[in-house]
Amino acid sequence: MGGGKRVVWGTLGKATLRYSSLPTPCSQSSTSAANYLGANHPDVWIRGSNGGVGTSCRPSSASQTVTRTASVIYGKSIAATIKSQIVREIRQMKVVTGNHPGLAVVLVGERRESHSFVRIKMKACDEVGIASLTKELPSDCTEDEVLDVVSSLNKDPSVHGIIVQLPLSKHLDEERILSVVSPEKDVDGFHPLNMGNLAMKGREPLFIPCAAKGCIDLLLRSGVEIVGKKAVVIGRSKIVGLPTSLLLQRHHATVSVVHAFTKNPQDLTREADIVITDVGLPNFVRGSWLKPGAVVIDTGTNAVKDPNSKHGFHLTGDVCYEEAVRVASAITPVPGGLGPVAISMLLSNILDSAKRAYGFI
Amino acid sequence: MGGGKRVVWGTLGKATLRYSSLPTPCSQSSTSAANYLGANHPDVWIRGSNGGVGTSCRPSSASQTVTRTASVIYGKSIAATIKSQIVREIRQMKVVTGNHPGLAVVLVGERRESHSFVRIKMKACDEVGIASLTKELPSDCTEDEVLDVVSSLNKDPSVHGIIVQLPLSKHLDEERILSVVSPEKDVDGFHPLNMGNLAMKGREPLFIPCAAKGCIDLLLRSGVEIVGKKAVVIGRSKIVGLPTSLLLQRHHATVSVVHAFTKNPQDLTREADIVITDVGLPNFVRGSWLKPGAVVIDTGTNAVKDPNSKHGFHLTGDVCYEEAVRVASAITPVPGGLGPVAISMLLSNILDSAKRAYGFI
Repeated sequence: MGGGKRVVWGTLGKATLRYSSLPTPCSQSSTSAANYLGANHPDVWIRGSNGGVGTSCRPSSASQTVTRTASVIYGKSIAATIKSQIVREIRQMKVVTGNHPGLAVVLVGERRESHSFVRIKMKACDEVGIASLTKELPSDCTEDEVLDVVSSLNKDPSVHGIIVQLPLSKHLDEERILSVVSPEKDVDGFHPLNMGNLAMKGREPLFIPCAAKGCIDLLLRSGVEIVGKKAVVIGRSKIVGLPTSLLLQRHHATVSVVHAFTKNPQDLTREADIVITDVGLPNFVRGSWLKPGAVVIDTGTNAVKDPNSKHGFHLTGDVCYEEAVRVASAITPVPGGLGPVAISMLLSNILDSAKRAYGFI
Repeated sequence: MGGGKRVVWGTLGKATLRYSSLPTPCSQSSTSAANYLGANHPDVWIRGSNGGVGTSCRPSSASQTVTRTASVIYGKSIAATIKSQIVREIRQMKVVTGNHPGLAVVLVGERRESHSFVRIKMKACDEVGIASLTKELPSDCTEDEVLDVVSSLNKDPSVHGIIVQLPLSKHLDEERILSVVSPEKDVDGFHPLNMGNLAMKGREPLFIPCAAKGCIDLLLRSGVEIVGKKAVVIGRSKIVGLPTSLLLQRHHATVSVVHAFTKNPQDLTREADIVITDVGLPNFVRGSWLKPGAVVIDTGTNAVKDPNSKHGFHLTGDVCYEEAVRVASAITPVPGGLGPVAISMLLSNILDSAKRAYGFI
C-alpha cells in the first residue's frame, strides 16, 4: 500500500515513487503544464554485462558457426545518387529562375569538431551548387548576439537554410535560439513546429531532420517492409532518435523507444524487425541483441583511439558490426552508412526550401 | 533477393514492399519531405480471435479462480480535488487582477454528440468560475468563415482558451483550422507547436492535451512508478494516444505504441507495466492481454446499445473491465475514470492561460 500523503483516494499494491514532479493537490501551480513533463534527466547509458565500451567486439566461436551474412547497405553510393539528382535540379532551377539555393551556418566558438562538421557540410553544398556562408561568433558571445545573427539570416532572401551548429556553449539557451530560426528555413528540422508536424498524422513538416530522413530513405530504397513491422529505436535525441521514431510511426511500424532508463534494452531489441541506434557509444549493441534477419541502421559515429591509424583514432558505430553482420539481414557500415546519406538529405532540405522560396515546385 | 527496380545498390534477403511513398531516385521531387511521411492510412482496428466488439465480457471460470482484484482509480474524486483547487485560484485571481478566465468554443453544425460535449465543458467552466461562450456556425459554412471566427477569438483579450469542437464537417480542413488557433490560447494542446514542444526533451509546451495530462495525473497521484517502466499505449490519436506516449516518455518510461497495423497487439501489451488505451471499441483489450499487476488507464468511452438503460445505451471503455480487474493492480472505471479528470485538466489549461495573460503566476 502506498500510504504516502500524495495518494489521495486509496492506494495500490505497489511501491510508490517519490517523484520530484508529482503534483501536490494543494500547491497553487500543481496542474500547470510544467508539473506534468517529468524531470529532465540526461540519458546516461549504463552497459549490461554482455558488452563494454571499447571492449573487443569480435564474433565468438559460437557465432562464427552461423553462416548468415547481412547485406551491407552502402550509404556512399545512395548519397551519390541523391546528390547527382540534386545537381540536376539546381541546374534547372538556375535556368528557370536565375537563382540558386543558399545555406548559412551559425558557428559559435572554436570547438574543433564543430568546425570540422561545418567544413564537411559546406564542401557538400559546394559540390552540388548551393552557396554557403558561415557566421562565426566568439565562444563568449551573448545570447542576444546569436539571436541577432539568426534574425538577420531569417530576413535574408538569399539564405534558404539556417543551421545553428550544435552543441552551443553552455551559457547559451539552445532551445530558445533554435526556436528563433524561421520554420521556413529550419533545414535541420529541429524547430518544434516542424517536429510537431512530423509527430501528427495528416500533417506535413516543412523539413524532416536529416538523419531521420536518411534512415527512412535507406529502408525504403532497400525495399524493407515497414508497415506493421516492429521497430526499436535505441536513443531519443532530437537529431536522430526522436524524429526517426516519429517517422517510423508515420510509416505504420510498431515503434518502441529504448533509452538510458530502459531496463534490459536487449530484450525489446531482440524482438525488433528494424533496429535504429542513436546511442553514441561504440559497440553498445551486440550481435546477441538482434533477432536473426533484423535490419540494422547504425547512426553512431564514435571516435575510438587507434594508434595504428594515422589520425590516432578510427570511427565506429553503436553496433558491434562484426557480430551483427552475422545475425542481421541488412546493416549499415560505419563510416559509409547513414553519414553520407544524412548529408545529402541536408542538401535536399536546402533545395526544397529554395524551391518553395522561388515558387519552383 | 529483392530484385525490384527501386532496389538501387544491391538487395536484401527479404520480400520487398511496393510502397506508395517510396522515393524513386529519378523523380524530381523524390527527396522532398512529403515523400518520406508514409501513407495516411486510417487506423481500422481488426480484432483478434480472443475478443469481439459487443461480445460478452465476463471473467471465464478459469480467471474467476484468481483472487487478485485491482485498486479502482476513481477519477471523479480526483477531478473534484482538482476543481476545488481551481475554484480557489480563480477567486484569488479575481481579487488580485479583477479578471476571470474565459473560454470560447467554435461549434460547427448540428452533430448531437458535439453539442452534448460542449454543454459538459461549459457546465464545468461555469462551476469553477470560468466564463464561456459558443460561436455556432452552420454545417455548410465555408472554411474562411471558421478561420475568421478563430482569428477574431485570437484577438479577444477576454478569451484565454479556444476550442474548435471536433470532428469538423469533411469539407473543412481540420489541420489548417487548428493551426490558426493561437498557440497561446490552444487549451486543447492540438497546435503542432505545442505538440512539438511536448515531444522534445527540455522544452515546455504552453498546454498539454487534457486526456494525456489526465492520464499522467492519475498515475502520479496513485504513486505509480513511471521511470524505467514499460508502457504500452494502444491507439495514437492526437487527442489521447500520441500526446500520452510523448508524455510517458518525458517521464522516462519505455514506450511502445500499438495501433491498427500492429500484429498481435496482445503480445506487446502483455509485457507492459502501464497500459493506456485509446481505441474506441468496447471490450477490445481483454484480461488475457494484461500482465498480472499492470496499471490500466482506459480512455475509451464507447456507447453500447442497452435496452435496459433509460437512454437505450450504456458507456463502456476499451478494456473488458470485468476481466481486467482480476489481473491488473489498478484500473480506471468507465465512466468515472479518466473522463472527469480530462475535463478538470481542460479547466486547469484555461486557468493557466488566463494566469499568463494577466501575469498572475
